[in-house]
Amino acid sequence: MSDGLVIASNRGPVTWEQGEDGRPAPRRGFGGLVTALGGALQDEPGTWVSVALSDVDREVAASVEGKAFEVSADGSRYRLRLIDAGDRFEPYYNEVANRLLWFALHRLWVDPYSPTGESWREAWADYRSVNDQVAQGVVEAVEGSATEVYLQDYHLCLAGPAIRGAFPDAALLHYLHTPWTGLDALQRLPDPIAEAVLRGLLAADVVGFSSPVWCRAFRAGAAELLGARIEDDAVLLDGRRTLVEAFVLGVDAEDLATSAASEPVAAAGAELDAALDGRQLVLRVDRTDLSKNILRGLRAYRLLLERHPEHRGRVWHYAHLNPSRQEVPEYREYLARCLAEAEEIRELFGEDALEIFVGDDYSRAVAALQRSDVLFANPVKDGTNLVAKEGPTLNERDGVLVLSRDAGATAVLEAGALVVNPYDVEAQADALHDALTMSASERAVRAARLREAALRGSPSEWFRAQRQVLRGAVSSRSGRAAG
Amino acid sequence: MSDGLVIASNRGPVTWEQGEDGRPAPRRGFGGLVTALGGALQDEPGTWVSVALSDVDREVAASVEGKAFEVSADGSRYRLRLIDAGDRFEPYYNEVANRLLWFALHRLWVDPYSPTGESWREAWADYRSVNDQVAQGVVEAVEGSATEVYLQDYHLCLAGPAIRGAFPDAALLHYLHTPWTGLDALQRLPDPIAEAVLRGLLAADVVGFSSPVWCRAFRAGAAELLGARIEDDAVLLDGRRTLVEAFVLGVDAEDLATSAASEPVAAAGAELDAALDGRQLVLRVDRTDLSKNILRGLRAYRLLLERHPEHRGRVWHYAHLNPSRQEVPEYREYLARCLAEAEEIRELFGEDALEIFVGDDYSRAVAALQRSDVLFANPVKDGTNLVAKEGPTLNERDGVLVLSRDAGATAVLEAGALVVNPYDVEAQADALHDALTMSASERAVRAARLREAALRGSPSEWFRAQRQVLRGAVSSRSGRAAG
Repeated sequence: MSDGLVIASNRGPVTWEQGEDGRPAPRRGFGGLVTALGGALQDEPGTWVSVALSDVDREVAASVEGKAFEVSADGSRYRLRLIDAGDRFEPYYNEVANRLLWFALHRLWVDPYSPTGESWREAWADYRSVNDQVAQGVVEAVEGSATEVYLQDYHLCLAGPAIRGAFPDAALLHYLHTPWTGLDALQRLPDPIAEAVLRGLLAADVVGFSSPVWCRAFRAGAAELLGARIEDDAVLLDGRRTLVEAFVLGVDAEDLATSAASEPVAAAGAELDAALDGRQLVLRVDRTDLSKNILRGLRAYRLLLERHPEHRGRVWHYAHLNPSRQEVPEYREYLARCLAEAEEIRELFGEDALEIFVGDDYSRAVAALQRSDVLFANPVKDGTNLVAKEGPTLNERDGVLVLSRDAGATAVLEAGALVVNPYDVEAQADALHDALTMSASERAVRAARLREAALRGSPSEWFRAQRQVLRGAVSSRSGRAAG
Repeated sequence: MSDGLVIASNRGPVTWEQGEDGRPAPRRGFGGLVTALGGALQDEPGTWVSVALSDVDREVAASVEGKAFEVSADGSRYRLRLIDAGDRFEPYYNEVANRLLWFALHRLWVDPYSPTGESWREAWADYRSVNDQVAQGVVEAVEGSATEVYLQDYHLCLAGPAIRGAFPDAALLHYLHTPWTGLDALQRLPDPIAEAVLRGLLAADVVGFSSPVWCRAFRAGAAELLGARIEDDAVLLDGRRTLVEAFVLGVDAEDLATSAASEPVAAAGAELDAALDGRQLVLRVDRTDLSKNILRGLRAYRLLLERHPEHRGRVWHYAHLNPSRQEVPEYREYLARCLAEAEEIRELFGEDALEIFVGDDYSRAVAALQRSDVLFANPVKDGTNLVAKEGPTLNERDGVLVLSRDAGATAVLEAGALVVNPYDVEAQADALHDALTMSASERAVRAARLREAALRGSPSEWFRAQRQVLRGAVSSRSGRAAG
């Protein structure tokens, strides 16, 4: 049915490290995205276009003269096209994608000081240019008019129109792993950016998000800012129809089961059991991203101990934090503030009231998720929050989930979780108390609901659903054109 | 037609100062609100209920044992009811009204750090209780079932339901002088606050704003958060129908003309002319409120001089700032940052590139508005921004108005102004350049449009329109009840 696949994303399925022999050595990346999309590329012809992220990546791109090439990594084989963005990488990636767009989509602005709104034009020109390079890579990889193109995320918002320009009939889906925000946040971007991002995404036949809430916000933004017409789930603009749909992304159960049964996880679990010493575990597992709302989470834990002395000495809060974007000043300052807050809590309630771990240790995270009595995920805004699904899947204690209402995962998990307003610390402290004192029977009922919901939409189902919707959209477009 | 009027607001039409004889001396307040509402009270029976704001106010309230009383001030006579909120004043006014609500309605949160979401419940209970006191004052002042009640602003969001409870048939209008925000900002409030504020306002027959944009946002919020039904301009909830309407508030032309012709204004004008020394004047007149976006304004002026050296030495930026809420730490820090930015600009482009005046000097502000070549009003969000209307009314040079798209006044001024995105400093620098280099003929055309628009809705017309809409809403309600 298709002439193959083209996938485009900022980060590709393979990264290179300097090998012991001095030559670049390929390694397969982690995560559901690589599993789902990379899996499809094992079964049919296709190319993955991505941006070179490191010097070693750039060395590889130069060695093949920027052309497509084949590579094997950890048992999978890929046809890749690696884009070297040169000096434009920094403004494209850090200034526009991770600052302007990420901050807007997660409402992270430190109003009235940021966004500063200055010197965005140069960075925006670079973002545009890297997107053009990626689009060019995609165009060259397209095998025929029935090739399906899957663009990933907020780094490539402007790639669609160039691809559409080259192949008016292309089957094009753009999936965003982020949330989408309302107009108030979107309009803090310079108008040309807000408008180009919306128009860029609307070059696709299908725009996908992980939650129907983000879909509604996206359609409303297109209607308000571009004057687009909304018809059921579709956005109509300039004679083009774009379906905006949610595709639930659940856990990779098999992958999790393998990890859970591993020796390092067992070892990490024994360590955690010793630290816990029979107390209840309130757990957080997050990247150190501003959007994760770690600081308010710590304040809620502090309030819990202040207002409910009965939990002191009976609860341990373990925050497992993966360092993220520490080159961005706001991220460094935020982590410092979190660590200072943790220190205050220890001074107030004793050294072993809480531990913050900052580092990469997947086994320790898995072992903690198996043992948590309460998993606390309170992001101010989160595309999905996969941890909220991995936790219930791995957990062995009918652990309770205290979950922000503004995570994409909440749409499927709300029947099992205690749902909170991420800005209301008093309500979060209440929810932690309710979770810690919940009856065993209610925990069991809720945990069963969470497990069932977390399994919906495995990575391969998630991608299969996208393909099906994309094919439907394209064939009804052809139908309209013929009719 | 009516049994008189009751007006309720936080700040009343009269304030007291310690007189020379040691006794409280009444003074009439300033502004269009006192002119419009106080004027109506001169013509028909009625009471103004307000909150005692100072120790002297509280002394006056105590001297009449909290009862209604009559007072003359500066030639006007009022029947007043002064509410002493005691210890609750501080949390009601500073914590809830000026912090939680003001910040939410103007999107001023310093995410990811504020709102902190802590200990709001106590302050909220105090806000509720002061609102109950005011409602009680209103109820006691109502003369009969046809008495019209006009509640003012975001301090009294919860007064409506108590008044409605006592008089189910009361004619009740609640006017908000602030903007209204989208869900993203509203949902940063604790849920019970967001919901109670919406429900409280919907106890009125009519909710008024100064711009149709705020009306739309309010209706959308009621639909989304409360599940209310929207029917044309009305919100339907629990069998009650509330009309949500915009009432344009323009300048008080007579009052302005009197000021403009005064001796102090002439003296201030001569001083400004000397400082200007033939250069073009870029003017800002604002309270030092975070919502006024002064810092980005200064950055735009700096960018203008950086990118257009031809303006150096030919332009003078005068920022006339009225100190506001300097007891709030964020406001103090913001003003300090603005002053530091101004200092940097002077270091870069010379001492006389700019002057910041911080103080109360109405005559100087009027003289500056008469002389500006460019009036720069770039609030991130502003209920109306009356200065943007006073400027064109007073101006004698066909001055250009560079105006934020997010001010309430923009709805009527956009045909004459250069409208900018308040977050886009590069675009604001461009607009300043365009304004400074605009042809005399275009300036004249635009200035004429601005003058015409600024006069629409004089304070007394503004209030007359509200009365008419309120009476219409009440009589169609009675019609439905009878039918």
